[in-house]
Amino acid sequence: MLKAAIVGATGYTGEELVRILIGHPQVKITSLSAKIDKPLPISELCPDFKGKVDLVCKGFDLDEVAGDSELVFLAVPHGVAVKLAPSLLEKGKIVIDLSADFRLKDVSLYPKHYGFSHEAPKLLGEAVYGLPEIYRQDLKKANLIANPGCFPTSVILGILPLAKKNLLDKSSPIFVDAKTGLTGAGREAVLDFLASEAEENVRAYKVTRHQHQVEMEQILAEAGGGAVCQLVFVPHLIPIQRGILSTIYLQLQNEKEEKEIWQIFKNFYRDEPFVQVLELEHFPETKSVRMGNFCQIGLRRRGKVVVVIAAIDNLVKGAAGQAVQNMNIRFGFPEDMGLGVNSKFKHQNAK
Amino acid sequence: MLKAAIVGATGYTGEELVRILIGHPQVKITSLSAKIDKPLPISELCPDFKGKVDLVCKGFDLDEVAGDSELVFLAVPHGVAVKLAPSLLEKGKIVIDLSADFRLKDVSLYPKHYGFSHEAPKLLGEAVYGLPEIYRQDLKKANLIANPGCFPTSVILGILPLAKKNLLDKSSPIFVDAKTGLTGAGREAVLDFLASEAEENVRAYKVTRHQHQVEMEQILAEAGGGAVCQLVFVPHLIPIQRGILSTIYLQLQNEKEEKEIWQIFKNFYRDEPFVQVLELEHFPETKSVRMGNFCQIGLRRRGKVVVVIAAIDNLVKGAAGQAVQNMNIRFGFPEDMGLGVNSKFKHQNAK
Amino acid sequence: MLKAAIVGATGYTGEELVRILIGHPQVKITSLSAKIDKPLPISELCPDFKGKVDLVCKGFDLDEVAGDSELVFLAVPHGVAVKLAPSLLEKGKIVIDLSADFRLKDVSLYPKHYGFSHEAPKLLGEAVYGLPEIYRQDLKKANLIANPGCFPTSVILGILPLAKKNLLDKSSPIFVDAKTGLTGAGREAVLDFLASEAEENVRAYKVTRHQHQVEMEQILAEAGGGAVCQLVFVPHLIPIQRGILSTIYLQLQNEKEEKEIWQIFKNFYRDEPFVQVLELEHFPETKSVRMGNFCQIGLRRRGKVVVVIAAIDNLVKGAAGQAVQNMNIRFGFPEDMGLGVNSKFKHQNAK
Amino acid sequence: MLKAAIVGATGYTGEELVRILIGHPQVKITSLSAKIDKPLPISELCPDFKGKVDLVCKGFDLDEVAGDSELVFLAVPHGVAVKLAPSLLEKGKIVIDLSADFRLKDVSLYPKHYGFSHEAPKLLGEAVYGLPEIYRQDLKKANLIANPGCFPTSVILGILPLAKKNLLDKSSPIFVDAKTGLTGAGREAVLDFLASEAEENVRAYKVTRHQHQVEMEQILAEAGGGAVCQLVFVPHLIPIQRGILSTIYLQLQNEKEEKEIWQIFKNFYRDEPFVQVLELEHFPETKSVRMGNFCQIGLRRRGKVVVVIAAIDNLVKGAAGQAVQNMNIRFGFPEDMGLGVNSKFKHQNAK
Repeated sequence: MLKAAIVGATGYTGEELVRILIGHPQVKITSLSAKIDKPLPISELCPDFKGKVDLVCKGFDLDEVAGDSELVFLAVPHGVAVKLAPSLLEKGKIVIDLSADFRLKDVSLYPKHYGFSHEAPKLLGEAVYGLPEIYRQDLKKANLIANPGCFPTSVILGILPLAKKNLLDKSSPIFVDAKTGLTGAGREAVLDFLASEAEENVRAYKVTRHQHQVEMEQILAEAGGGAVCQLVFVPHLIPIQRGILSTIYLQLQNEKEEKEIWQIFKNFYRDEPFVQVLELEHFPETKSVRMGNFCQIGLRRRGKVVVVIAAIDNLVKGAAGQAVQNMNIRFGFPEDMGLGVNSKFKHQNAK
Repeated sequence: MLKAAIVGATGYTGEELVRILIGHPQVKITSLSAKIDKPLPISELCPDFKGKVDLVCKGFDLDEVAGDSELVFLAVPHGVAVKLAPSLLEKGKIVIDLSADFRLKDVSLYPKHYGFSHEAPKLLGEAVYGLPEIYRQDLKKANLIANPGCFPTSVILGILPLAKKNLLDKSSPIFVDAKTGLTGAGREAVLDFLASEAEENVRAYKVTRHQHQVEMEQILAEAGGGAVCQLVFVPHLIPIQRGILSTIYLQLQNEKEEKEIWQIFKNFYRDEPFVQVLELEHFPETKSVRMGNFCQIGLRRRGKVVVVIAAIDNLVKGAAGQAVQNMNIRFGFPEDMGLGVNSKFKHQNAK
Repeated sequence: MLKAAIVGATGYTGEELVRILIGHPQVKITSLSAKIDKPLPISELCPDFKGKVDLVCKGFDLDEVAGDSELVFLAVPHGVAVKLAPSLLEKGKIVIDLSADFRLKDVSLYPKHYGFSHEAPKLLGEAVYGLPEIYRQDLKKANLIANPGCFPTSVILGILPLAKKNLLDKSSPIFVDAKTGLTGAGREAVLDFLASEAEENVRAYKVTRHQHQVEMEQILAEAGGGAVCQLVFVPHLIPIQRGILSTIYLQLQNEKEEKEIWQIFKNFYRDEPFVQVLELEHFPETKSVRMGNFCQIGLRRRGKVVVVIAAIDNLVKGAAGQAVQNMNIRFGFPEDMGLGVNSKFKHQNAK
Repeated sequence: MLKAAIVGATGYTGEELVRILIGHPQVKITSLSAKIDKPLPISELCPDFKGKVDLVCKGFDLDEVAGDSELVFLAVPHGVAVKLAPSLLEKGKIVIDLSADFRLKDVSLYPKHYGFSHEAPKLLGEAVYGLPEIYRQDLKKANLIANPGCFPTSVILGILPLAKKNLLDKSSPIFVDAKTGLTGAGREAVLDFLASEAEENVRAYKVTRHQHQVEMEQILAEAGGGAVCQLVFVPHLIPIQRGILSTIYLQLQNEKEEKEIWQIFKNFYRDEPFVQVLELEHFPETKSVRMGNFCQIGLRRRGKVVVVIAAIDNLVKGAAGQAVQNMNIRFGFPEDMGLGVNSKFKHQNAK
């Protein structure tokens, strides 16, 4: 049994990690910690765990977290992980960081987009970006995994097959109109996210200025073999609890048949356990991926324009599920272990 | 034109007062104030006022609020009104207080239920409880009006006809199961009321211990001619924005025909402009009273038991609308003026 | 592996059965059927099954359903199960019926409460009511299990310990104010349940006339050793998707300490895997039982009055989960198998 | 008093018309009709009208509708208005049609986009498109007004200033990502729009194939002086009741300062009573226009790209409110009469 610690267990992402890992046949949770004053059963902090999870969450203590764990998940705010990771790595722990602190390669972007000076720039070079669909081989031996942001996961997966094939018209911007549910804002008392404010309302925020945009641009440039299109990214807040739907407006260099474009996606993700390319005329909805680790993708063509729609659960494939997928890769477990696609199903499929 | 000031204009109740008064043909708003650092157009604080309300909200200043206003609405938290009202009354202003600070007659209840020692106990004797269906005559000459709580408004109106007629079995408790929307919790950043916490959830709170219970008991005892039944009051939080539905379980001394009970309600409220007794077999829903000043009541009998269901909009009949109704009574305007039942309608009705 | 068929797989209850059984280590689903025109992958009808469940749903055919299955779940509308069960039982199948068709003992109640004349009255005597907390021993050898209604499950569990101990004041009615989410209305196109009608709204329905009331009364009378109190049951529709919160207002013959009442509940459910009695001062919320098979119960006393609040997920403990719990009992599997409380957790608990 | 009839009074749009007109000082509703079996008080069909509107809704009868009305609003499904309008016009009535039946100039588009052959092609030439911001002068003398679609209203207003000035890069498509609430789907029992299906979900529909796209293209081409850009329109369904937020991605021929673009919008709509151009750095939300007739517009520039976000209430500026605005123009009333911007406010503004 792999011994794992979770730091930041009381946020939405941390809670989701607990939910998934408790059902993982090869993991034992050895430590739960969070910014709390005194130890409390996690089932008191997250009452749906009552009767399912009987672990105690404590205030953070480096030695205790490191303790006998082999793996530490950091589900902490941006700017905190960068302070914790170096010591954990020095102690020989594998770290999967769900914050943004090790996602960007260019250290100068941190002050601008995250408001802090990065204290461990060397680790930016060592960290592997935890999107298995691109970096699976590197992840197998990574000691520090930078788990992707929720928006980037859906957007990169929706653009990647065309970027890799160099089919995009680079003179045209890619417009990404994303819709996210309210857990994306985190478990913090903020007026704007009160139910009495956020329900019965839709609004854009950080229009073209969201910090995830540089993350997408970096990965797409790297994965797509250099320069890609300009991204114009506009996230919207939607009154649902979980889910991201990213509607992506692309332009190709040359017009292609819709079927042909679809086939490119289909082939590209053929062996991916968690990317589902829907049949033509079908588009994903957030409820179809709710509580699951899948990214569903649908597309339509109109002239040179391709509209790609990608849906994920922001807390699963957009955070905790993908972190577990990365853990599985890193420790040599079946990639879908503990992620809701059990062997019985695979067997029934095989019939 | 009556000159009115609103203190606490940026809470949900204050905002609703502005919404209603701006359309009132006999009122001019002379001052909006709130706990803010610098003056701001109210339309910036409440963006749906843009293009409709062009007033500036300032930090509270007694002289400025008193200024040339004749009437001051206090839409401030409990414990604050008690500090403001005395000075305003001394300056000769009429005060309509939407907090609980002048609702209870027994000063000893404040520390227990509201957590503060009442500094103006004499005013408790002078304040008139602003439920027109009981105290209309007193309200006509009141200088300090204690506007009722949202739950008490719906519950008292649902019990009153039977209490007045002395039909209740006083040995049986009255059970009140109330459901309220999320604006009832106020515009304050509290974790439990985040959309990501409160949506897709129903829960009871302050079970049998809500501070509104003593308010109901006091008024029902007074109005019902002395002792009434014990109340067992359990409020529930429901993921809607506006509305209260109170389901009241009563027992009569003697069994009566359903039709007869209904007739008692119908007669009792015959001349009330804002209480609607629905036909038998019909029950109110919160959406039927949304944004209106009506209390709708439906009932069913089963043996000696009567189930009464009362619905109001918590921000209108449960707060700002009733405050304006009280203002109309106090200043001799038609009681329904500015409350959505315009003269044209009455004329069309009269046809 | 137990071979199980599900009839009515496309309703909310049927879909939930599939969701649970697909993860059950001892069950193989051999047939999915529903009222559909042509066979379709269940993942097309319920798109969140895509990548998880690769079964085909067909139109109902008795021989095919019976086929090589040992167990048949009927998740069909009231009045349909009564037509299917006799043939299936004759063919030697075990039947777990999630409709109301075999819950009532008195055949004369069917025309009145369900609108049909019961064609298999003899089976009413043979059917065992599938509430393990009462009928566990009988369920072990039952061939026809009448899975309880969603409301009755929460209400009976909230009253049972006091009824069994004969502590209730039988001269006082028990008032049950229940709140249910919208999946309770089933997957049928009905105007009143449109999001544009049912959101931002709360309403009572079938006030004191809901068909589940006789079911509760029957079971409580039987379990409580004869006559019990009159029930006054008022269900309310709440804009959530899943969940029932039943607030129960009881009166005791003799006043007792709150702690003592709590201890009675605690003892009564000590060995129950799926009933959780919360600590005093704690009350359940629907989100705490969402997607789980637990019934959470909290209580408060005031004089002779006891307020009991019980929460379940209407589709799990209120339907499909309880059906699987019954299946586990009937076929000798661990009672919590496949219901989210895995052995690893129990082991971690045991540490 | 202008005598007005409403056909289709029980749909969401018809109900909203009643709500607005009942408060209009110059209108008397002389007839309400709908597809119903027997006459019913409108307050029974729409229970929030109880106590406010005392009119009876009848089954449609041409003579009765025409009766003594001067103006008829058609709030009927597409394909029905085309059958009713000719007779009403012959009888000398002014007709404001809220369906799509007279919006398109090219009669051949009807079979393709609306599924019927148009029987009154001549009227397509006579009808005036009811967007006052473009066609105010023509509306003053129009006998048949084709009230715009909800999406087109928000989208055309968001693009118009740049199209008119010929600033758009015509070689680049305009991408429109629209989000609409659930009343947009109409008051019809459809499975997909059940609360239990549509809540906690976001999805695109009619991707690039929505019938409103040709309407936008026609008007923009006409208003923008001929050819405009290709539109790529993707509507999304969002779990709110009212509101449309259209996020529009445009490209300019030549880069301009953000401030300069904003000034173009500001100047263009300077005298418009119902279009509000927000300050830079501000963007609209649907709740800011809820229940009002305003279209709020915000924008941001990034290189040659301009992101314009436009919000309306789909039932008001997107339907009934705009219809009343058109009525005001046609009959010479102040354009904002009865639309929530009363003279007192204007006076208070003027101070």
